[in-house]
Amino acid sequence: MKRALELAALGVRGANPLVGAVVLSADGRILGEGHHRGAGTPHAEPAALAETLRRGNDPRDSTVVVTLEPCNHTGRTAPCTQVLREAGVRRVVYAVHDVHGVAAGGAQHLREAGIECVGGPGAAAARMLNERWTAALAGRRPFVTAKSAQSLDGRVAAPDGSSRWITGDRAREDGHRLRRLADAVLVGSGTLLADDPRLTARQPDAESVPRGRSALRVVMGMTPVPERAAMRGPGFVQLATRDVGAALNTLYEQGVRHLLVEGGPRITSAFLRAGAVDELFSYVAPLILGDGAPAFPDLGAESLTDGLRWIPDDAGGPRLLEFGADVRLHLRPPGPQGS
Amino acid sequence: MKRALELAALGVRGANPLVGAVVLSADGRILGEGHHRGAGTPHAEPAALAETLRRGNDPRDSTVVVTLEPCNHTGRTAPCTQVLREAGVRRVVYAVHDVHGVAAGGAQHLREAGIECVGGPGAAAARMLNERWTAALAGRRPFVTAKSAQSLDGRVAAPDGSSRWITGDRAREDGHRLRRLADAVLVGSGTLLADDPRLTARQPDAESVPRGRSALRVVMGMTPVPERAAMRGPGFVQLATRDVGAALNTLYEQGVRHLLVEGGPRITSAFLRAGAVDELFSYVAPLILGDGAPAFPDLGAESLTDGLRWIPDDAGGPRLLEFGADVRLHLRPPGPQGS
Repeated sequence: MKRALELAALGVRGANPLVGAVVLSADGRILGEGHHRGAGTPHAEPAALAETLRRGNDPRDSTVVVTLEPCNHTGRTAPCTQVLREAGVRRVVYAVHDVHGVAAGGAQHLREAGIECVGGPGAAAARMLNERWTAALAGRRPFVTAKSAQSLDGRVAAPDGSSRWITGDRAREDGHRLRRLADAVLVGSGTLLADDPRLTARQPDAESVPRGRSALRVVMGMTPVPERAAMRGPGFVQLATRDVGAALNTLYEQGVRHLLVEGGPRITSAFLRAGAVDELFSYVAPLILGDGAPAFPDLGAESLTDGLRWIPDDAGGPRLLEFGADVRLHLRPPGPQGS
Repeated sequence: MKRALELAALGVRGANPLVGAVVLSADGRILGEGHHRGAGTPHAEPAALAETLRRGNDPRDSTVVVTLEPCNHTGRTAPCTQVLREAGVRRVVYAVHDVHGVAAGGAQHLREAGIECVGGPGAAAARMLNERWTAALAGRRPFVTAKSAQSLDGRVAAPDGSSRWITGDRAREDGHRLRRLADAVLVGSGTLLADDPRLTARQPDAESVPRGRSALRVVMGMTPVPERAAMRGPGFVQLATRDVGAALNTLYEQGVRHLLVEGGPRITSAFLRAGAVDELFSYVAPLILGDGAPAFPDLGAESLTDGLRWIPDDAGGPRLLEFGADVRLHLRPPGPQGS
């Protein structure tokens, strides 16, 4: 299960949870491994079984160890229960129950099909892995990734407003990769007026766009959007509200399960204040400006203990990456356990 | 020479330059390697020769490749020229001349002793390695390391002034390690009044304090220092000036060759404005404050192009290190070549 959890962390967090799976022979050898790589791609169990066959191993009578109860639901992929049955798997060990309404009931289905099924091992770690994702789903709101690019001293623009570019090409390309993983990309109406972004994902590569479609481009705020704004066109959504909860509700109703908040700083801070940021990718350039627009204004912290003390996050992307001279920090809010 | 340069970068930058050396057999095998580990410890050549013997190799008739011309000077250690002669080395290849007045002339001395001596290979890279150090020496001022500890958004304190602690234990221990490497540790008089620091290096370990002595504790600024300030005592120096150049002159005259500037932010910015920071260690905590005292105030940059665009520095410490949840960035100013 430890290995399955490690594999899960290699995945892409967003519309779907992180899941990892290992296929074991009767004598405990690893026959194949797999993890879920994002919505529309195979689930962890089929991925691990496919890898088992690719390695020339026989999955019959094997044990599949997986971090989440196998799904019993035909979504964009076939139900994992069916795949496990057809592969001749003898036993399934999973960490946590699937709480997703339509996909639940997998373990019972497997047992009825004569497959031994054990739930529980590694449950705490598996729950932690998808804690924020599960909370978002339970709250009927999208999982929210925030992205920020700043100077070493936390500025997103110089005093004269210049901001192109603080980070280098490679960091900005990685930012475009984040766009390709989301169902929707959101900016504030102030940023729209200032930068007139297109919010499309540059340099799409087939592997990163499993669903073969672009994210919704969302502007949030009360400022009217010019007729000729670059964001307009198919997939453009305007949310005339300053209320984060209302915006998330509307997007969820429209089918958005993974939202990328790109800023500006006031919008990002509004999501942070609402406790609605599930992970943060912060790109830091080795640039010292001394003054200029702060990356996270108006958070209202008076004392050090009021600040948001986040946690380096190795799941769904390494905690620390370099892109040329820039550094990317991957952080998540502390869990309810304060962990 | 490439290997010698790599070895040099492993060293400690400060009062002495970074130097690496490799001992080669007649047929080009590596017999031993060494680098200089800071003032008072063996130079790179004796270190490499000692390692040669430790490995059971014979340094006679070997070639020593070193990034800096061997010194011809009895300082805290014997002259390298003498060590090379006594070891029976046949040939010395060095990258750059030693510009240090009393230590220069090593190549000529070796030639007179019958040792073949070639200067020049790798000179550009070796010069770059110690560019700022050489410039400091030429300007008769200490080499200056600045240290800063901040939140992700570039704050050194919350709005109410609370600042203990932004970074964790391990990052702060590393900060103490930096103190042990310097000849003097400097803070502004405002910081002295606010924090009353002792500026002694906690947890000394023998290996890190080669000189067996503590750094001078320096306060700079016009604010009077209270009689009961914790910094007072042997090794306490007060510089009643706001002029960075004057402060550096005074310290150089007192024998300080490596200065650690610890802040506060206004003092660090004053050194940055004066172009007098040769390397920066920035500790960044995964804490978002939103507001509070900025890490680098009053730099005067109006536009993005006015900002200090620094360079990740792998010499004298890796460019990027993690200390628990905190990250340490090691940066240097761009060289005259804009590199």
